[in-house]
Amino acid sequence: MRNFNEDNITQAVLERLSHCADARTRQISEALVRHLHAFVKEIEPSEAEWTSAITFLTRTGQMCSDTRQEFILLSDTLGVSMLVDAINHRFAGNATETTVLGPFYVEEAQDLPLGAYISHASDGPPMIVEGSVFDTRGEPVANALIETWHADDHGFYDVQRATGKGALDMRARFHADDAGHFWYRSIVPVPYPVPNDGPVGKMLDAQGRHPYRPAHVHFKVSAPDFETIVTHVFLEGDAYLDSDVVFGVKDALIAKLETVEGATSLAGHPVTPGTARLAYRFVLPDSR
Amino acid sequence: MRNFNEDNITQAVLERLSHCADARTRQISEALVRHLHAFVKEIEPSEAEWTSAITFLTRTGQMCSDTRQEFILLSDTLGVSMLVDAINHRFAGNATETTVLGPFYVEEAQDLPLGAYISHASDGPPMIVEGSVFDTRGEPVANALIETWHADDHGFYDVQRATGKGALDMRARFHADDAGHFWYRSIVPVPYPVPNDGPVGKMLDAQGRHPYRPAHVHFKVSAPDFETIVTHVFLEGDAYLDSDVVFGVKDALIAKLETVEGATSLAGHPVTPGTARLAYRFVLPDSR
Repeated sequence: MRNFNEDNITQAVLERLSHCADARTRQISEALVRHLHAFVKEIEPSEAEWTSAITFLTRTGQMCSDTRQEFILLSDTLGVSMLVDAINHRFAGNATETTVLGPFYVEEAQDLPLGAYISHASDGPPMIVEGSVFDTRGEPVANALIETWHADDHGFYDVQRATGKGALDMRARFHADDAGHFWYRSIVPVPYPVPNDGPVGKMLDAQGRHPYRPAHVHFKVSAPDFETIVTHVFLEGDAYLDSDVVFGVKDALIAKLETVEGATSLAGHPVTPGTARLAYRFVLPDSR
Repeated sequence: MRNFNEDNITQAVLERLSHCADARTRQISEALVRHLHAFVKEIEPSEAEWTSAITFLTRTGQMCSDTRQEFILLSDTLGVSMLVDAINHRFAGNATETTVLGPFYVEEAQDLPLGAYISHASDGPPMIVEGSVFDTRGEPVANALIETWHADDHGFYDVQRATGKGALDMRARFHADDAGHFWYRSIVPVPYPVPNDGPVGKMLDAQGRHPYRPAHVHFKVSAPDFETIVTHVFLEGDAYLDSDVVFGVKDALIAKLETVEGATSLAGHPVTPGTARLAYRFVLPDSR
């Protein structure tokens, strides 16, 4: 129970977990110790490197705020978030594919009526977003809740502005109609770098990686008795589709940004000809 | 370069590191991705568990301050610090064994003359600490720098008090004399729990572990042309020698706390009979 060295320390720490009452906590703790020690034994860090790692983790935590989650960004950029996403969404059949939640989701977005314009503090080409929500048998999911958010024409989310959560924009909650259909008006989002003025930005730079994500709109779609789908719809043709810094792109999630030709109104709302239109069909798996 | 799933995401992240210019950064990044993904694949975290992990790491970073380093504490309590210590101190021969630096080292401690009393704001049984510094051939290391620090009779370090670094106590820097000998006066330290009001304390509790360290005095001993030794001297008979929460105890670092019988002075300083005396012989390995 003392005199620990490279050969016996891992086993010693594992034995110290033998009084852990909760089986899952013990399983996770044991796996953490085994993999963490294996990592350290493989790289054999100098003491200066170990100190750098401590400093990196500390700064990552201290970069987090009400509107910034640097550890989620770290998880995203190391591919861990997509791995956790895949593990948790082994849906069979035709359910919509999932991707990362990302660090900019805000629970308390506003409930708005279908057709609402959601980008009040942003300029950019107008865009209509239309969607429909079905179950895996092709029946519409009436009244499904759609939470949606995206970046502005400069690549920033509302919470990245100085107003933080004080002025939510380019995000809203909608309820689909009886046919599972929803639509809203916004502006066309653009590709953007993930926040790269913190430790994760420094890491990407050191790893020779760009910080960009292809343009996309986030969706969280939920309804009683269905699994919640967290996903993006990406814009076809984006330059970063094959090098998304968070590894989130799937072919099935790419949609062509069409142009509304000649229309002057949609569900009673005036629509300027030439407006961009993004449409996507969501399929929710049963939760039972 | 898209459509990532459980089977291909790890390789995809590794390929993204192919433009990393610095070989060591690439090596560490690749190992991190492999071991981190293997950990996640083994435990298959739910999304709620992943969120808990993000929150745990964030709180750990935000618990850190000028006088508190929760990530070092995490590294210590998971046995990582002792593993890094072992990897970095594969000294052959009779060099003093090393152990963790711990989170309470302060660089800017005061230089004091030999024999000084260093525990001005603490009560507790008086203790004389004596040491000698030799090289591996048994020659004294004249003028070696000894940095030393320990907890008080309640188990707290100076920086854990409300004064923080404003009133350093129970720590100092000494220079050994020409014979490699040094001594100072203090109080007897006691076993103590590592700070357990933060995320690491919660982790230990969940793992069914006590947070205690056996009583010890820290030493960092350095001299030109020698490797620096960071170690503790533990007090023989302590109840926690076999269950140190940071896995730091080695038999060769345990010393008996003796009692000075009858002496009335030591190097010109008055010594009360019955004063405790802790003595240790340090051996520095050559750095060349």
